[in-house]
Amino acid sequence: MAINIKNFLFSQSKNSKIRDFQDLDHIDGLAIGAISAKLYKYERDDVVIFYFRDGANYASVYTQSKIFSENIKWNLKIKGNSIKALFVNTRNACAFLGKQGLQAIETIAKDLSEQLTKKMKIDDEKPSKVRSNEIIFGCTGTIGETFPLEKIRKSIPNLLSKIKYTQNKYLWIKAALGIMTTDTVPKMAMTECKIGTSNIKIYGVAKGSGMIYPNMATTLGYIFTDGNIPSSILKKLLKKNIETTFNAISVDSDTSTNDMVSIFATKKANHIKVKNINDKNLKSFDESLNLVLLELAKKVAFDGEGASKFVQIDVLNTKNVKDAKKIAFSIANSPLVKTAIAGEDPNWGRVVMAIGKAYVNLNVNKLEIKFGKLKVVERGLISKNYNEDLLKEYMSSKNINITVEINSGKKSFTTYTTDLTKKYIEINADYRS
Amino acid sequence: MAINIKNFLFSQSKNSKIRDFQDLDHIDGLAIGAISAKLYKYERDDVVIFYFRDGANYASVYTQSKIFSENIKWNLKIKGNSIKALFVNTRNACAFLGKQGLQAIETIAKDLSEQLTKKMKIDDEKPSKVRSNEIIFGCTGTIGETFPLEKIRKSIPNLLSKIKYTQNKYLWIKAALGIMTTDTVPKMAMTECKIGTSNIKIYGVAKGSGMIYPNMATTLGYIFTDGNIPSSILKKLLKKNIETTFNAISVDSDTSTNDMVSIFATKKANHIKVKNINDKNLKSFDESLNLVLLELAKKVAFDGEGASKFVQIDVLNTKNVKDAKKIAFSIANSPLVKTAIAGEDPNWGRVVMAIGKAYVNLNVNKLEIKFGKLKVVERGLISKNYNEDLLKEYMSSKNINITVEINSGKKSFTTYTTDLTKKYIEINADYRS
Repeated sequence: MAINIKNFLFSQSKNSKIRDFQDLDHIDGLAIGAISAKLYKYERDDVVIFYFRDGANYASVYTQSKIFSENIKWNLKIKGNSIKALFVNTRNACAFLGKQGLQAIETIAKDLSEQLTKKMKIDDEKPSKVRSNEIIFGCTGTIGETFPLEKIRKSIPNLLSKIKYTQNKYLWIKAALGIMTTDTVPKMAMTECKIGTSNIKIYGVAKGSGMIYPNMATTLGYIFTDGNIPSSILKKLLKKNIETTFNAISVDSDTSTNDMVSIFATKKANHIKVKNINDKNLKSFDESLNLVLLELAKKVAFDGEGASKFVQIDVLNTKNVKDAKKIAFSIANSPLVKTAIAGEDPNWGRVVMAIGKAYVNLNVNKLEIKFGKLKVVERGLISKNYNEDLLKEYMSSKNINITVEINSGKKSFTTYTTDLTKKYIEINADYRS
Repeated sequence: MAINIKNFLFSQSKNSKIRDFQDLDHIDGLAIGAISAKLYKYERDDVVIFYFRDGANYASVYTQSKIFSENIKWNLKIKGNSIKALFVNTRNACAFLGKQGLQAIETIAKDLSEQLTKKMKIDDEKPSKVRSNEIIFGCTGTIGETFPLEKIRKSIPNLLSKIKYTQNKYLWIKAALGIMTTDTVPKMAMTECKIGTSNIKIYGVAKGSGMIYPNMATTLGYIFTDGNIPSSILKKLLKKNIETTFNAISVDSDTSTNDMVSIFATKKANHIKVKNINDKNLKSFDESLNLVLLELAKKVAFDGEGASKFVQIDVLNTKNVKDAKKIAFSIANSPLVKTAIAGEDPNWGRVVMAIGKAYVNLNVNKLEIKFGKLKVVERGLISKNYNEDLLKEYMSSKNINITVEINSGKKSFTTYTTDLTKKYIEINADYRS
C-alpha cells in the first residue's frame, strides 16, 4: 500500500522549514495546553500539557545514561497501560536533585490529578478520576539547580484553563515552541496511513539541538496517533523504530540525563483490530511511524548547534548491524571528519581513519568509500577515477552523503549528523549567565 | 631508591618548554642522523635515522586501528629481538597505499641495509652486516598519497654521511624537530635511574599534536636507554607503562593509522643482570620509564591543536580499572565538557552528564566531584559549600584538575586532555592546500 506522506520536507532547503507545520490538525481524543509559568527571565511558554480525557495507550523509551532525571524515575515506576496526561516543563531538567526532585514531581502529579479530576467534572459528560499514576513527565533544562516547584504549581490552574480540545496547526506550533530550549526552530512532523481501510494519523513534536540552555542535549520526542493500538504493541513498535531514527543521530556524541521519546494512541479511530506486531494490517502504520520518527530525529540533528551542513553516513554490507553502527558512529562522532566537512575539505583520509578506529575487523582490500556519487576509495585504494576538484565541489553542498561499503556481509546502518563549526564552540563555551 | 628526575618541567608554564632540552646528551651505542629529503615545499629536516651500530634490544607498541600503515605492517613482520636502525620520515604516512606502499618500505630497507653495511666497513673496527630485517620504520603525514620513494632513496647517502656517533642536546633537538609535523614544539624528556649500582639513562623524543599535516593525529614516541635489558622484558615494561601514559591521553578521541611507541636498549651500560620484569633491580628503571613516557605523552596532549588549557581527570575508587577508564575518557572526550573548559564556564553539570554516558553502573548517592580542591558534588548532590564564584575563578587556571570519586571500589585511572577551542576548528577545517 502506498504511504500517504505529507510534509516530509527534510530534503528541502533550511528556509522551507516553516512549511513543516501546515498540515497538522486535530487528533481525536487529544487536548493540548501551553502557557508560561515564568520559568525564564523573558516571556515564553514553558509548561505544556498533552491531555487525553478518555485515556491513551502509550509506550516510552528513555536515556541509557546511568545518571537520569527524577521525572524519568517517576515515569519508570508507572506500570499501567493507559495514561491521561503528559506534562512537560523546560528550563529545569529536574536532574541530580535527589529526593527533593522526586518529591517535586510527586507534588505536581498530585496537583494535576486533583485539578484535572475537577475539570473533568465540569467539562465531560461521563467524568472519571484522573490518578497521579496516569500522568507522566518530560523535563529539560539545567541540571542540579533547585526545581521551580512553586512557580509550576501556581501555573497549573491557568494551564488547565487554557487546554484546548481541538488542535489546529497554530496550537501544534505553540506546543512545539513550549517544549523548546535552545532549539532554533520548533520541530513537527506528520503523516497519515491506513490500518485496514481506515485512515490513521501519526503526528509528532520534538525538541533538541545538540545541547540546551545551558547544560546538555536533551532530546524529547512525542508521537500522537488516533489509532487503537494496545500499549504492548506500541512498546514493540517504538523500540524497533527508535533504533534507526532517534538512536541513529549524533550531534556531539553527548547524551542527556533526560532523553525521552513516547507514543500515545488515543484509540479514537475506528479500525480493524490489530493482534500483534507482525499483523499485516500494521505494516503501513509501522513504516509511517518510522518516517515520522526519522523526520523528527533529522530535524533535531540538523538543528545541531552551529551546524552548517547535514551529513548522512551509510555503512553497507557488514556481518552484523552492530559492526555497521560502530563504524557509522565512529565517522559521525569524529571531530576530524566533522571539522573537515565544516571546512569543505575533501579530506577522505579522515573517513578512513574513523573506519579504522571503530575497531571492527574488516578486509581493507574490499573497502569502498563514496562521497555522494563520487567514488573515492575502491578495493582499499584511492579510486583510479578520483578527482579532487570534483570532490571539493561536492564538499560545498549543504547535504553531504558518505557511503562506506564494507563488502563482508548483508547488514547496514545509516546515521545522521552535522559538521562541527566554530559557532558550536562559541555557543557552548559561553558562560551561562 | 630515589629517582633522579631531571627536566620534568611539565608543570611549569608553557614558555618554559625550551628548557626541556638542556640535559639530553650522549647515549652510548646510539648514532643519529637527520636531513631534508625535500619532502616539504619548504626546507626542513624530514628524514631521521636512529642507528645502533652494535644492535639494540627493542620493543614496540602500535596503533589499535583496524586500518594501519604499510610501515607498521613491515615492523610487525620482523621477528628478531635485535635491531640496527629506526628510520622515520614525515610528510607521508605510507598508509592506505596497498602493495605499492609495502614495496616502497622494502626498497628503502634494502637500500639502507646495503649502504649501512658499506658504511660499517669504513667506520667500524669489527664491521658486521646490517640486514633489511634489522631496520624498523616510523612514518607520519598524509594518508593515501603516493609515497615519495625516489626522493627518500636519493636522500639516503647524504643522510648516512651525516650520522653522528655522539649526541648532544642540539642533535636531540634536530632529531625531535625532524620527526615533527604540525607540532608547535619539539618534544623530549629524560631521566636517569639505577640498575643495581649503575647509572642508567632513559631519553625520549615524541611527536603528535591532535592531528598533523594534513590528515590525522599520528603519535610517535621513541625511548632510548643504555641499559642492557632483554627485548622480552622491554616488551612487558612498555606494554605495562603505555597504558597509564600514551594510552591515557586524549586530544580529540581520534586514532591514527600510524601510532607507534618503541623503546631501544643499546646494552652499553655495565650493570647487574636483570632476569625478569619482577626483578627488584628493575624497579627504578620501571618507574623512570613511566615518568619519561608520561612526560612525553603530556607534552603531546598539551600541544593539542588549539589547546589553551591542560586538563587532568582522576577517576577514583571504581570496581575495576576498565570502569575508571571508561568514565575518565567519557569526560575527556566530551565536546561539551571541553568547550565549557575553553569558555572557563563552571558548568559541572556537563561532567555529571559525561559520567552518566560512560554507561558504568554506579551509585549516584556516593558520587563526589572536585574541581581542583573545590568540592562541587558530595553524596550525589551539589555540595553544601558550593560557591560558583570560586569555581569560576578556578576555571580561569591554565591547568584544570577534575577529580571524580565513585566510592565503589579500589581502582583508579587518570587521563590527560585539553580544552576544545575555536582555534581547533580553524586548524582542522582549513583546506589542505
